[in-house]
Amino acid sequence: MAGAVGSRSCKKIRGAQIRELLEAKANVLFDCDGVIWDGEKAIPGAPEVVSLLKQQGKRVFFVTNNCTRPRELYMQKFSRLGFTGVEQEEIFSSAYCSAVYLKEFASLQGRVYVIGGDGVQKELKEAGVPFVEGEVDVPGQTISDCPLESDVKAVLVGYDEKLNFLKLAKACCYLRDAECLFVSTDPDPWHPVRGGRITPGSGSLTAAVETASNRKAIVVGKPSKFMFECIASQFDVDPAQSVMVGDRLETDIVFGSNCGLSTMLTLTGVSTFEEAQAYMERDTPETQSMVPDYVVDSITDILLALKE
Amino acid sequence: MAGAVGSRSCKKIRGAQIRELLEAKANVLFDCDGVIWDGEKAIPGAPEVVSLLKQQGKRVFFVTNNCTRPRELYMQKFSRLGFTGVEQEEIFSSAYCSAVYLKEFASLQGRVYVIGGDGVQKELKEAGVPFVEGEVDVPGQTISDCPLESDVKAVLVGYDEKLNFLKLAKACCYLRDAECLFVSTDPDPWHPVRGGRITPGSGSLTAAVETASNRKAIVVGKPSKFMFECIASQFDVDPAQSVMVGDRLETDIVFGSNCGLSTMLTLTGVSTFEEAQAYMERDTPETQSMVPDYVVDSITDILLALKE
Repeated sequence: MAGAVGSRSCKKIRGAQIRELLEAKANVLFDCDGVIWDGEKAIPGAPEVVSLLKQQGKRVFFVTNNCTRPRELYMQKFSRLGFTGVEQEEIFSSAYCSAVYLKEFASLQGRVYVIGGDGVQKELKEAGVPFVEGEVDVPGQTISDCPLESDVKAVLVGYDEKLNFLKLAKACCYLRDAECLFVSTDPDPWHPVRGGRITPGSGSLTAAVETASNRKAIVVGKPSKFMFECIASQFDVDPAQSVMVGDRLETDIVFGSNCGLSTMLTLTGVSTFEEAQAYMERDTPETQSMVPDYVVDSITDILLALKE
Repeated sequence: MAGAVGSRSCKKIRGAQIRELLEAKANVLFDCDGVIWDGEKAIPGAPEVVSLLKQQGKRVFFVTNNCTRPRELYMQKFSRLGFTGVEQEEIFSSAYCSAVYLKEFASLQGRVYVIGGDGVQKELKEAGVPFVEGEVDVPGQTISDCPLESDVKAVLVGYDEKLNFLKLAKACCYLRDAECLFVSTDPDPWHPVRGGRITPGSGSLTAAVETASNRKAIVVGKPSKFMFECIASQFDVDPAQSVMVGDRLETDIVFGSNCGLSTMLTLTGVSTFEEAQAYMERDTPETQSMVPDYVVDSITDILLALKE
């Protein structure tokens, strides 16, 4: 049975087994990067899988820790990559959910200081969460002599290619005030880019701020349950009727396990079958939540199963 | 007895007690920031204390996690603040010791990729450790399309006010090679600056790289024992004959404890007497090394004791 510690099977399934699993579920949650697409290419079959599941009357959600895009740009990407019929309300990105967290759950009074790119800033704007904007780099300015805003009541840290030392220092200064909330979009430590290279993720920048501020961030993205709560606050989703499909054991699969969903690992992204098996063999309470119930090579396997 | 767990007394001493302690020691190790100076001001009495101890035939060492200056600039600062007779060979900064580590202990073959400022770069140059220099920021360049050097065999991370996202990403890419050494100048999480503001320390930047690379850095600075080994490789220092004077429980005092020195906390810097007492009361193996043997309000107390 999915959900109980020690019972996850890490079972490779295909064909009829995949079909039976999906027949028993009303909701399918997909991670995006490494699951339905890889950069600017859809994983073969992904657009058809999404369409077929919807035709079967299932709800499909996209649950991504990638905070670089506002949902509006996700919509464009879905369309560009050949996905049809995806609705913006089905997209739960860590940027969107962070805005929801600050607005709805934390009822923030004041502004947010943001380490993060356009994705985060646009979602905050859309949600009506005020944040510090338009800061200009003044050459030679240091944390000793730069202005700080008195109405900052939260620091939000996410992936930011424009990160610099002064931004990091400002975030830490705001967090000296114990009343100032400390929120991180997601804990992803790194992301693969081209040619075996990697880029630091939100989790890396969050670790820098956590260390310097001696505080722990509230993490919105997977594996935190908040993203599921966010979906559940807008849709009627029964965890027992839902499956999470992801490529990263430490985020997607733990998220599914934590929220009581069935979990399926696809091998087109970060984690490998061997890593999943190693977690299963270690069999500690810590590693058990990283063991997927099911494993498929690719979302293509789901398409083959649905078409059989 | 200093050195045994559970036995540290956190005892406030003055006058004759200080004099007796110092009479029994041959070597006095001072941290710098918050102990002998505060920014551009000497703590009152510090220059005289250093001179008097030297006149009494004691060896004095300066052991600092501050990696922003090469020892040459430390010499100028000592002189500017009224210290006389300080020798460059008595200064053990985390920048200098990192260069020694790479050169002497790791016998590095290849170049170092540096996150760090002038202090680190000048010490590497002085020690003859080659590193990647003269990188120019190309607007719009990302980790996908920037050049990486094939002969980088170590990443050294220290305090760097010119930190940016691309530097962080490059460090993480180099560390994909398991043969590439990962060294951190020091673990200081943050530093106080003016007006209650703080700046992230080397430990904060190291945490970002550790998280993104999924590796642990070899930390050169206090509380690692390496800085004492570095002194001991150049001078005849018996730990039992030595006292470490510092302002930070988690670095200076733990360093002294780890190396078997007597430890003295001064209250002119980061840590407070209450924090030291709280660590003593918790009385766990973890916190015991943070409890100083002795506490003085300021180095001024040492001057008064020596002059009595």
